[in-house]
Amino acid sequence: MSAEGTAGRRGRGRPLGARAGTVETRERILAAARQEFSARGYDKTSIRSIAKSADVDPALVHHYFGAKEQVFAASIELSFEPAFGVPDVLAAGADGVGERLARFFIEIWENPVTRAPMLAIVRSAVTNDTAASVLRGIVLRRLLERVASELKVPDPRLRAELAGAQMMGIAIMRYVIKIEPLASADMEDVVALVAPTLQRYLTDPGPVEE
Amino acid sequence: MSAEGTAGRRGRGRPLGARAGTVETRERILAAARQEFSARGYDKTSIRSIAKSADVDPALVHHYFGAKEQVFAASIELSFEPAFGVPDVLAAGADGVGERLARFFIEIWENPVTRAPMLAIVRSAVTNDTAASVLRGIVLRRLLERVASELKVPDPRLRAELAGAQMMGIAIMRYVIKIEPLASADMEDVVALVAPTLQRYLTDPGPVEE
Repeated sequence: MSAEGTAGRRGRGRPLGARAGTVETRERILAAARQEFSARGYDKTSIRSIAKSADVDPALVHHYFGAKEQVFAASIELSFEPAFGVPDVLAAGADGVGERLARFFIEIWENPVTRAPMLAIVRSAVTNDTAASVLRGIVLRRLLERVASELKVPDPRLRAELAGAQMMGIAIMRYVIKIEPLASADMEDVVALVAPTLQRYLTDPGPVEE
Repeated sequence: MSAEGTAGRRGRGRPLGARAGTVETRERILAAARQEFSARGYDKTSIRSIAKSADVDPALVHHYFGAKEQVFAASIELSFEPAFGVPDVLAAGADGVGERLARFFIEIWENPVTRAPMLAIVRSAVTNDTAASVLRGIVLRRLLERVASELKVPDPRLRAELAGAQMMGIAIMRYVIKIEPLASADMEDVVALVAPTLQRYLTDPGPVEE
């Protein structure tokens, strides 16, 4: 949105190549931001360090995105994109959804390209209130609402969150704190143990009885 | 252990009051360390800042505990103490253990006095490798071994970790990132939803069937 707006403003009267150039610059800044936030966390990243890594003037970062908080929000939206596939996993039906969802998350984490930015978000959100607020907004607006609309259980958002909490806890213990035996466990064993948990949260209407 | 050792060394040939004094100083340093690590995280805490907060010379902090890593380890042992009650919860029997365990954790978190240092540990471990390594050692040595010996299921340590991951994920989402509806949920509702998850991990021998 901001890309088009900016490209339109800057590209007025210029050939198409100039527009493409501004979109490309914006994407280069975003990639640099993602890289910086992943490597250094929210607190230690600055507009200046992002600009340096993208090889542009700091004013240009500010021009495209605004303050650090907004650059971070745009970077999270991008890093979080794999998780936005969750509603599709749920929409494929209640049968076996627990196993499909467990495998969906584990495939994101087992791939270092998607894991690093996801864990960077968690790290930033756990240590910085602004980062937590940005993540909170994106999870609520982009994920939880859509997930809840796919579920036919009482308190669908609470249950979706408990399923998410289970998977986030596993990610932190396995990839960040690296506590054995989870850190080296065969992921198929983890899927088998976790699938019934997710299945129950997402499909079993009874809250206590089991 | 280190307290007795140090008190013994310093108190040799002195009246009992002097020993009590050194134990008291050590405890004051430890309380200050815990406070500093909670408030500022591992990275931003230094031997100097702990000493200042305890109103002692930095050399004394080093004398009692060693390097920052060791001060942190001692501080974690102390902060983590509430969690060391888990084996007792399990030892009380398989019947209803999921609900007892969920309530046990939630009572630790709902009390700000025990919650703050527990969350500080998680924050530090998620952002700093040394802190992660210290936490890893304590969880393995002080908790997971003892928990596993209480369980009569295959892969007891892996299952105990998955239960722990569920509860840690809930703590992070509820108290740190504060994502609704979990952030304001009635904890009895959460206990009711989570209890069957813990119960299954800790007592149900079947890995997939449910």
